[in-house]
Amino acid sequence: MSDGFEAGRRMYDFASKIFPYTRSITGEGVRQTLKDLAEYVRPSGVELKISEVPSGTQVFDWTVPKEWRIKEAYIEDERGNRIIDMKENNLHVLGYSIPVDEWVDLEELKQHIYVEDGQPDVIPYVTSYYKERYGFCMSKNMRDSLKPGHYHMYIDSELFDGVLNYAEAVVPGQTDKEIMFSTYFCHPSMADNECSGPALAAELINTLAAADKLKYTYRFVFVPETIGSITYLSRDNHVPYLKEHVKAGFVLSCVGDDLDYSMVESRYGDTYADRVLHNVLKFKDKYTIYDFHERGSDERQYNAPGVDLPVVCFCRSKFGEFPEYHTSADDMTFVSPEGFQGAYDAMTEVIEIIEKNAYYRVKVLCEPQLGKRGLYSDISRKGSYDGIMVQRDVLSYADGRNDLIDLSERIGVPVSEIVDIVDRLADNDLLEEVEKPSV
Amino acid sequence: MSDGFEAGRRMYDFASKIFPYTRSITGEGVRQTLKDLAEYVRPSGVELKISEVPSGTQVFDWTVPKEWRIKEAYIEDERGNRIIDMKENNLHVLGYSIPVDEWVDLEELKQHIYVEDGQPDVIPYVTSYYKERYGFCMSKNMRDSLKPGHYHMYIDSELFDGVLNYAEAVVPGQTDKEIMFSTYFCHPSMADNECSGPALAAELINTLAAADKLKYTYRFVFVPETIGSITYLSRDNHVPYLKEHVKAGFVLSCVGDDLDYSMVESRYGDTYADRVLHNVLKFKDKYTIYDFHERGSDERQYNAPGVDLPVVCFCRSKFGEFPEYHTSADDMTFVSPEGFQGAYDAMTEVIEIIEKNAYYRVKVLCEPQLGKRGLYSDISRKGSYDGIMVQRDVLSYADGRNDLIDLSERIGVPVSEIVDIVDRLADNDLLEEVEKPSV
Amino acid sequence: MSDGFEAGRRMYDFASKIFPYTRSITGEGVRQTLKDLAEYVRPSGVELKISEVPSGTQVFDWTVPKEWRIKEAYIEDERGNRIIDMKENNLHVLGYSIPVDEWVDLEELKQHIYVEDGQPDVIPYVTSYYKERYGFCMSKNMRDSLKPGHYHMYIDSELFDGVLNYAEAVVPGQTDKEIMFSTYFCHPSMADNECSGPALAAELINTLAAADKLKYTYRFVFVPETIGSITYLSRDNHVPYLKEHVKAGFVLSCVGDDLDYSMVESRYGDTYADRVLHNVLKFKDKYTIYDFHERGSDERQYNAPGVDLPVVCFCRSKFGEFPEYHTSADDMTFVSPEGFQGAYDAMTEVIEIIEKNAYYRVKVLCEPQLGKRGLYSDISRKGSYDGIMVQRDVLSYADGRNDLIDLSERIGVPVSEIVDIVDRLADNDLLEEVEKPSV
Repeated sequence: MSDGFEAGRRMYDFASKIFPYTRSITGEGVRQTLKDLAEYVRPSGVELKISEVPSGTQVFDWTVPKEWRIKEAYIEDERGNRIIDMKENNLHVLGYSIPVDEWVDLEELKQHIYVEDGQPDVIPYVTSYYKERYGFCMSKNMRDSLKPGHYHMYIDSELFDGVLNYAEAVVPGQTDKEIMFSTYFCHPSMADNECSGPALAAELINTLAAADKLKYTYRFVFVPETIGSITYLSRDNHVPYLKEHVKAGFVLSCVGDDLDYSMVESRYGDTYADRVLHNVLKFKDKYTIYDFHERGSDERQYNAPGVDLPVVCFCRSKFGEFPEYHTSADDMTFVSPEGFQGAYDAMTEVIEIIEKNAYYRVKVLCEPQLGKRGLYSDISRKGSYDGIMVQRDVLSYADGRNDLIDLSERIGVPVSEIVDIVDRLADNDLLEEVEKPSV
Repeated sequence: MSDGFEAGRRMYDFASKIFPYTRSITGEGVRQTLKDLAEYVRPSGVELKISEVPSGTQVFDWTVPKEWRIKEAYIEDERGNRIIDMKENNLHVLGYSIPVDEWVDLEELKQHIYVEDGQPDVIPYVTSYYKERYGFCMSKNMRDSLKPGHYHMYIDSELFDGVLNYAEAVVPGQTDKEIMFSTYFCHPSMADNECSGPALAAELINTLAAADKLKYTYRFVFVPETIGSITYLSRDNHVPYLKEHVKAGFVLSCVGDDLDYSMVESRYGDTYADRVLHNVLKFKDKYTIYDFHERGSDERQYNAPGVDLPVVCFCRSKFGEFPEYHTSADDMTFVSPEGFQGAYDAMTEVIEIIEKNAYYRVKVLCEPQLGKRGLYSDISRKGSYDGIMVQRDVLSYADGRNDLIDLSERIGVPVSEIVDIVDRLADNDLLEEVEKPSV
Repeated sequence: MSDGFEAGRRMYDFASKIFPYTRSITGEGVRQTLKDLAEYVRPSGVELKISEVPSGTQVFDWTVPKEWRIKEAYIEDERGNRIIDMKENNLHVLGYSIPVDEWVDLEELKQHIYVEDGQPDVIPYVTSYYKERYGFCMSKNMRDSLKPGHYHMYIDSELFDGVLNYAEAVVPGQTDKEIMFSTYFCHPSMADNECSGPALAAELINTLAAADKLKYTYRFVFVPETIGSITYLSRDNHVPYLKEHVKAGFVLSCVGDDLDYSMVESRYGDTYADRVLHNVLKFKDKYTIYDFHERGSDERQYNAPGVDLPVVCFCRSKFGEFPEYHTSADDMTFVSPEGFQGAYDAMTEVIEIIEKNAYYRVKVLCEPQLGKRGLYSDISRKGSYDGIMVQRDVLSYADGRNDLIDLSERIGVPVSEIVDIVDRLADNDLLEEVEKPSV
């Protein structure tokens, strides 16, 4: 029995599996996540190619940082009670903490504790990638309940010359023009941000690999955020190659909740990726368009001057717009199979539009006689609009100037409905695809 | 004594004369209407050229249908009382009904009766051009009052290989660039839709024929709706000829009431016809602009891809927007001489703008000294704006970039006011016409 | 001690000094005003070049009028009491009055008295430049209180072949591309309109003359309104020269009050002057943009077809928009050092933007690492926006397509903030100026 959430359930399960790993921008948690991703897509025949870049490598204006190994982190009181322990929640340790093993009084301890003042119940997610520090994160309530006394701060960690990892998968199509998806995996135990993006990307790989034929080649990039996308772009001549080949790109982030659909536009909001995703979102019951000033993930790098890739960011609820963001409350209860499924459906709509999109022109002068072809009365009505009217509008605007997205926007129905009508009209020899806009 | 409604009264009288004829897309009613039209314009010296196209002729994607001859149609009860008779109202018979002569019980009779559920008092207008049926139309109240019993359905009609008629008149101007008007006459006894369009078109022919000189050639097309305009366009190489010559075109429909002024824009709302009619309407007290999605009459064919003529539709109240539409309530009381006159005035404004329109440039640098020419104080004030200010604005924007419509839109007064000022300034050698926009 | 109003106070004092002079479009009052202006700017080393054009000279469509000399004007009653005397307020005499010396009764006297009906307390400002008349101006209350009797109308004036004066100053820059300021001085004792414009222009001359280096050449034009700007443009081949060299121009009028900031756009609102001044005004707490239909001062001539200079008008409160306008209530209490200072600050912002403006491009691919350069945390927050975010936005949009004004508009902060950031980023070798938009 199908409830339409099969893909959503698979992604949810995969996110649940990788949720507990202690990820950061480098390290074992990251490698375990990539191994799981590789395994998830292996049955489809697609190879996830994992790369490593040594610490200290110059990547554009940045340097690949040391690798972080974390074994243990806790605070215990004088009686040996562990106040917090990263075994219980890996958010308890400040990301990239250097080691510490020291007894201090409460006053000094508090200088190393990070809380979220406005949300007293949650553990915040805090990191210190580029300045060497140690620290602990806990709820404000817990910190405020600590009694004077001595406390043992213990972190067994190491910063060492290691590697930064990223991965890439390509599903080839008939042309080398590409559609790109990019997502990131550098966060520890948070669900929407960011166990969801990798799960969705992997599921899309499997879907595309199973497709009959694809017009476009699909590239999937898995990186640690910021330093990862910068590293990726700086290697293998990627910038000029992608500038030449990428037709549209989508950063996937926070795609497992079911509260909204949203996008962050590209630098000028005028790329093909903007057009397609705008069109898909506008037919959702609820959606939000953020302009580029609201950017925050790797769309920052893909849209940087000189990189100039046509990339937008797709989210269910956008990062920074929900209170659970970057806290322990972003756990597996915040996401759902339904939420994942909605994101998956939106992205498959995006892919269908891109694969199908073309310009059309009617082949007869004046309106065709629909009655004699049985095209007048047997058009199903979908939703609230009138199928006959939509077909009539398609015939009026299929003049070689409008692609499927233009037709959808002019007529006010989703591209999928336009596609049904275009296909039927083409079957009746009333419509033909044309090379490019004739006006 | 003139009350400004002379033309309106002539059109109203003509509409009253042709109102009773039993018109359809073919047949005697149509031919009688065309004869009356020819007679109406004959004194002006303009010939109405009537064409006929045989049934079965292929016209683009369509086939000219059989001609319909209707002699009698009634329903009588067992006592010989005629329940309805098309002699009383020709809407009582379903358009293009095939013959019938049969006694049936009430239940079966009702299957052949068409009513307008939402308007229980009116007889609806219904046709079945492309499927052979017979039927009767009456008010819902009448149908609901019919008592059980036997009824005689009688229609003496014939569908036979005949002709489809259309007509055309041309008022020549100094150039072969054309302004086109198209209207239709295929409806039986309804006044606004559509005894009004032919009446207005005929009156405009007489007006233009009496004009001193015309810059443009004016073409008037009288057709049955849809099949007629398709037939017309398919014959005599009309599509390429009109594409080359027509500068603006106007479908006239529902132009006899006095409730609104309205237009349906062209396919992209960007033609010269759109510009001119927009401008005329915006200075009416009340008006409505419908975009092309609201189209319904022959603007559909003139705007079809590949036909691509710059044609809009002009109405007082737009078809489909008033409850009397396509019912017996659209009778000669729904229209009025005042209503016709308003439509006529709007169309003569359109013609005046098109005839007069040009780009102008001032001939002095800086503001001219108006006082020494008596142009400062003796400008009449019209309405609420200040004539001095309008003249000042004309002098500022007459820089070779703006035509009369641009000036009207920028300054916010009708073109007719602009023309008065432009003429006076040109008389004072302050302004000259220029060939085309100089920027 | 500085309160930020030093320049405002200087301008206020200068306006106070010239306030009492009896100015008109020609005559001694004008020459005294120009002498004072020359003296005001002399210490800066800039020469105010004063020109004279003889009465009767043809200037485009106009003729330079006779010069007006006025010595005395009063009305006295039978007992020798002076009802009004222009010694008390030079608005009491109708501008350009011819002489009169006549005893009349009250009825006839009233035919030569001008009042402002809606403002019974004020003396209106009225002139009759191009028709020979004599007259007196007084408050409506005074006129209504006059008792029947005999009155002596006395005006000792003369219209004779003299000259019209205007003046010009140029502050040279590195290029011969010019920024132009134009103001007028033809009004008698009114403060905002128009002792303020000349005061501001003179102060700007001093400021520019003291500047280290200037990219552009600055031209200041002082004229009587309308006839003066027409005369100026008609002489010395000014129109073609200015069309070739002027990049932006600003008419200064009513710049001493503190009620608003406003501008009148150029003919199409699309010049560089429009862009710059729009940008400056939008960051003021209160401002008003008037389109060209609201024009009234010399922007009329500079924007005339064929003259076509990129000139807008800058005001605090726009002429005609405040009740004190063109009455005795526009006195030195209506303006203030604060009001002048605000206008001066806005114009120096305009100059700074024009001097600094350029297109920029970042020199690294992807986001630069700000932390290692100390650019991440030490950015001061100004007002309500976040300096870090502004710097991030500058880096994203400095792609060679946006000048400082574009960046300001996109990011929503004043150009001055953008300049600070651009300078710091350039100091860190992250940004470079580029010749022109690269896209």
